[in-house]
Amino acid sequence: MKWKRSERLVDITRYLLENPHKLIPLTLFANRYNAAKSSISEDLSIVKETFEAIGTGSLMTLSGASGGVRFIPQVPEEEVESLIDQLLEQLGHTDRLLPGGYLFLNDIIGQPRLIDRIGKVIASAFMNEKVDVIMTIATKGIPIAHAIARYLNVPVVVVRRDNKVTEGSTVSINYVSGSTRRIQTMALSKRSMKSGQRVLLTDDFMKAGGTMVGMKNLIEEFDCELAGIAVLVESEGSEQILMDDYLSLVKLQSVDEIDRTITLQRGNFKLKEEL
Amino acid sequence: MKWKRSERLVDITRYLLENPHKLIPLTLFANRYNAAKSSISEDLSIVKETFEAIGTGSLMTLSGASGGVRFIPQVPEEEVESLIDQLLEQLGHTDRLLPGGYLFLNDIIGQPRLIDRIGKVIASAFMNEKVDVIMTIATKGIPIAHAIARYLNVPVVVVRRDNKVTEGSTVSINYVSGSTRRIQTMALSKRSMKSGQRVLLTDDFMKAGGTMVGMKNLIEEFDCELAGIAVLVESEGSEQILMDDYLSLVKLQSVDEIDRTITLQRGNFKLKEEL
Repeated sequence: MKWKRSERLVDITRYLLENPHKLIPLTLFANRYNAAKSSISEDLSIVKETFEAIGTGSLMTLSGASGGVRFIPQVPEEEVESLIDQLLEQLGHTDRLLPGGYLFLNDIIGQPRLIDRIGKVIASAFMNEKVDVIMTIATKGIPIAHAIARYLNVPVVVVRRDNKVTEGSTVSINYVSGSTRRIQTMALSKRSMKSGQRVLLTDDFMKAGGTMVGMKNLIEEFDCELAGIAVLVESEGSEQILMDDYLSLVKLQSVDEIDRTITLQRGNFKLKEEL
Repeated sequence: MKWKRSERLVDITRYLLENPHKLIPLTLFANRYNAAKSSISEDLSIVKETFEAIGTGSLMTLSGASGGVRFIPQVPEEEVESLIDQLLEQLGHTDRLLPGGYLFLNDIIGQPRLIDRIGKVIASAFMNEKVDVIMTIATKGIPIAHAIARYLNVPVVVVRRDNKVTEGSTVSINYVSGSTRRIQTMALSKRSMKSGQRVLLTDDFMKAGGTMVGMKNLIEEFDCELAGIAVLVESEGSEQILMDDYLSLVKLQSVDEIDRTITLQRGNFKLKEEL
């Protein structure tokens, strides 16, 4: 089959979007489309310019024998703002208020398109960092972790509070929940990570940060390093915050359980400067 | 900004891939690209022909005032075969064997690109069915449920075996685990579903099907209907299988805990006939 440029553009766009942060040799496209490398290079310039114009990411081209192209997903500042606006709007409904200052988030977490946007926004903030794996704790952090991981092209590991047979051998640690001050246990499959990996932590909700401290300790048990922390909602409670270096999209400033009101503001999320 | 056809093709491809099963009015594209509807129609024919040629899905065009275009993700038969081959290869390693005839699946579930392919394949089998929501039970079914949901453009609800404060009010039922014959409880947030919705059940692993029966009963408690069941791995044990109408990608035929061998075969997964 001989491909026209227009058809190649459609297929290259699809292929790149499905394979972010992956080095794709030009020969792969040249063979697939039965086209000269020079034509492929021209196709890629068009895709690159369009991706940059619409703010969907950048294409990095590496020349030479081992060269190729790599799609780095990125969001423009406006997408961060519009995502946070949408979250503030959806989270502000007072019927989300749960006992203990928690918010009902299940419906938010259950929207795949919204979670995908959250993942892309968080991945954009870490696109220039070395991240080898995304770690979260069951249950609600899982879709967020997977969305980030898709855009960074790295695996996800899930820490559990229970210890099921399906986990195989685990490494477990005790930690103190920051808000309840109770001692709890978390466990991770032994074969989840290799030593030396850089780990990005994520979760849907962070109160005092005790769970994050626990996961950080678990990372150390695996001789791995913390690459960063990003959460959907942080809660500014009366408790001492145990973590300091993290990104949040939304900050729950206060809840009034008697008046049933929720006060939200934008989190500290910032896209990092480009290198 | 005046867009060239080549740039429009790149952006339309991206937009459609990000918004499956959603009716997009032609005016949205016409306004965005400052182009005549006739040009947009030509663009869409090119995208449609390319998508169909590469087997990534089809574009349905609805004419008239309320018309537009809808992208229906689809996979070709070869993709199903190649996905199952890859799963059989990865699942066949004997070090996956866990006590009780379970398989270690965490690393499979933690690969976002693989889970995305699984989601697209399962979504393709249900593309002509009315599915309003994907339901799974915590924990490992969650990434699969989200991947299917992304391709069908519907929300995900997660049933839990514990009952946490962050769930709000729940509906809970007791069920009998098919393999252990123990009575267990599962719960779902009351506001997860509206009555009359059609629910697709999914999970990573199905043994006797007791959990699926439990979720089916839960669906009935919400006055909802079962739209189908799809699992990654079904296990053919000595137990009576409690479910009959389901799709599985892989079948675990037998495990020998003494010799530490695993026998796998292809599951009963079939893409449905096109309407």
